[in-house]
Amino acid sequence: MNTDPAAARTLEDPDTPFAVVDVHKTLRNIERLTARAGQLGVTLRPHVKTAKSLDVAALLHDKAPCPVTVSTLAEAEAFADGGYTDITYAVGIDPHKLPRVVALLRRGITLRVLLDSTEQATSVAAAAREAGIAVPTQIEIDCDGHRGGIKPDAPGLPAIGRVLHDADCLDGVLTHAGESYFAYSAEEQRLAARNERDTAVAAAERLRAAGLHVHTVSVGSTPTAHAAEDLTGVTELRAGNYVFFDLVMAGLGVCQIDDLALSVVVTVIGHRPEYGWIVTDGGWMAMSRDRGTAAQKTDQGYGLVLDLAGNPVPGLVMSAASQEHGTLTARDGATLPDLPIGTRLRILPNHACATAAQHHGYHVIDSTRPAPGAPVVQAVWPRISGW
Amino acid sequence: MNTDPAAARTLEDPDTPFAVVDVHKTLRNIERLTARAGQLGVTLRPHVKTAKSLDVAALLHDKAPCPVTVSTLAEAEAFADGGYTDITYAVGIDPHKLPRVVALLRRGITLRVLLDSTEQATSVAAAAREAGIAVPTQIEIDCDGHRGGIKPDAPGLPAIGRVLHDADCLDGVLTHAGESYFAYSAEEQRLAARNERDTAVAAAERLRAAGLHVHTVSVGSTPTAHAAEDLTGVTELRAGNYVFFDLVMAGLGVCQIDDLALSVVVTVIGHRPEYGWIVTDGGWMAMSRDRGTAAQKTDQGYGLVLDLAGNPVPGLVMSAASQEHGTLTARDGATLPDLPIGTRLRILPNHACATAAQHHGYHVIDSTRPAPGAPVVQAVWPRISGW
Repeated sequence: MNTDPAAARTLEDPDTPFAVVDVHKTLRNIERLTARAGQLGVTLRPHVKTAKSLDVAALLHDKAPCPVTVSTLAEAEAFADGGYTDITYAVGIDPHKLPRVVALLRRGITLRVLLDSTEQATSVAAAAREAGIAVPTQIEIDCDGHRGGIKPDAPGLPAIGRVLHDADCLDGVLTHAGESYFAYSAEEQRLAARNERDTAVAAAERLRAAGLHVHTVSVGSTPTAHAAEDLTGVTELRAGNYVFFDLVMAGLGVCQIDDLALSVVVTVIGHRPEYGWIVTDGGWMAMSRDRGTAAQKTDQGYGLVLDLAGNPVPGLVMSAASQEHGTLTARDGATLPDLPIGTRLRILPNHACATAAQHHGYHVIDSTRPAPGAPVVQAVWPRISGW
Repeated sequence: MNTDPAAARTLEDPDTPFAVVDVHKTLRNIERLTARAGQLGVTLRPHVKTAKSLDVAALLHDKAPCPVTVSTLAEAEAFADGGYTDITYAVGIDPHKLPRVVALLRRGITLRVLLDSTEQATSVAAAAREAGIAVPTQIEIDCDGHRGGIKPDAPGLPAIGRVLHDADCLDGVLTHAGESYFAYSAEEQRLAARNERDTAVAAAERLRAAGLHVHTVSVGSTPTAHAAEDLTGVTELRAGNYVFFDLVMAGLGVCQIDDLALSVVVTVIGHRPEYGWIVTDGGWMAMSRDRGTAAQKTDQGYGLVLDLAGNPVPGLVMSAASQEHGTLTARDGATLPDLPIGTRLRILPNHACATAAQHHGYHVIDSTRPAPGAPVVQAVWPRISGW
């Protein structure tokens, strides 16, 4: 990718494939959830794992650092370097990583860690005592059998809380309704949001009943954050994907296709009329192997196709991918359009988190500033990567 | 990833997840195909898109630059910087990228490009004339309907050759038996290899019959390169995946599980006995979303599990992934092993090209040098990325 912004005047300039972010749509998505969190009376703690970008994060709160959630310590360290002081690392803590956690705490960063076992709590307590510093810790609560966490009624929950409390490390509880990605109606999403809240609050109450102080009660996922109607007892709401949205979220009805802020620019490099294919230079290396819509009502292949200006090309879908080749085909009775060699297109991804991760950064456009030619590149924003 | 080799003495040291390459297995895989190419009497032109590493490439030909195939101009530029002078860029050329091609040719690199249309040939010829330099070009031939290329009997083939010939740019023909990834028996793979050869040679003969000079006749894919019995008329053989191999190749019988040279080290961060899960800190960000074995007889999920020393953990499979979480489950009647929090494991991937692409580099071990503790890290090798 050419990362010299001066060299990329419009989306016609950089060699393809490359990732594009529409800053207008990103801001609109951000404002929507910010308004909802305000109505619900909770702090919004965006998960920055989707964009992994300080520049995108600067849009979250009018350029001022805000509370954030991260998925790696590399993100935590980069956000700390960028002035963010209130960070939750929302993956169960590996004790081996505690020295990096302590180093961030010593820099004055409030870095919260997550766990769901007494073994991990004992490791955190020992590291905190050795370092002479409190390690604010949340207990992960399982609300829907999606992945990590302890059930709110599990016999072991108070014991975990006690180990943390005795080391001055108990901050609260956190849950994530991961199964809401498979909640295909607005009603199911509302139920998932209610269950997420109820489970987190029940866990917090159980710890309080055991005499432990619970400060943070954190819930969230992009679908439930947009569906929640009552977050009584919850202190903060997390969501990540919503800044860009993607075809999976559109398939769930959480957003419209027009809200998708991330796309990948590709170029037509061949035609196979005998098979009904247009071949591009954007394969799975550019889009990721994510096929998240395969389980949905409408399988969007590897993505839907826009022209370079951002208008949908009706009936055209990226139906196959190899490492550096994409195959576009027509569906729904559409005719394969006549797109000469060299034509640039934009592909909307299934899963923004996975597609963004295939790129070093984003070429930024603003779809509210129409240009006579291709959209003008406003900036090139780098991405954080690694662990 | 901690890229300071001094800080990573063994596989117990770097924070997880990270990618590991076993240099012994890599060399063994390389020697196997090098010997085959010698027996078949063709030049081997390894595809460096899998490892994207000058250090891995140094193993190909006893540290001397050899002919290579690349999938991006970023690879071509990095390999040119590393002293490689004979490079084939095996993705249909986007005319917009020709200035970078010309720049490499002007540096004295023999960079061959690929195309399958008169439009592209006309662009290449125009760029060559404008630059006053020959752009050696191969015509991509479709041998199995996999992706790009023109059929060897297509009416348009000689015309493409003529446009290139008249600009002194015709180098030869290239084909890739991509469908051999779905050839599930040794006999099917032999047939795919024979068809790949026959198709490439037929295309070359057709161009020659039209009075055009065809120098290179290039074939290859990892399955067909290992299955070919007779390459008469072919000048060179390409393959990429074979340096590392992976579960897809093992599922095809092209290699054994013991040949897999790439793995990802992850750490146990949780247990969900009620679901039969062990949770790790290696999700799809570390493994990729590739599920290539899903179409095979044995679906290996997101990968098979080894202990840190490299011994298989029988019956344990990585069955699910989210961004930074992996779920391990038992199958084939196996009992879920007792693996405490903090236990490190290695995951063998479905698709080495996709998994390697999720990492900045490789921690290198040598499985023939047993150590009393965890395998010793011999080096940390960076990877080329981007386009």
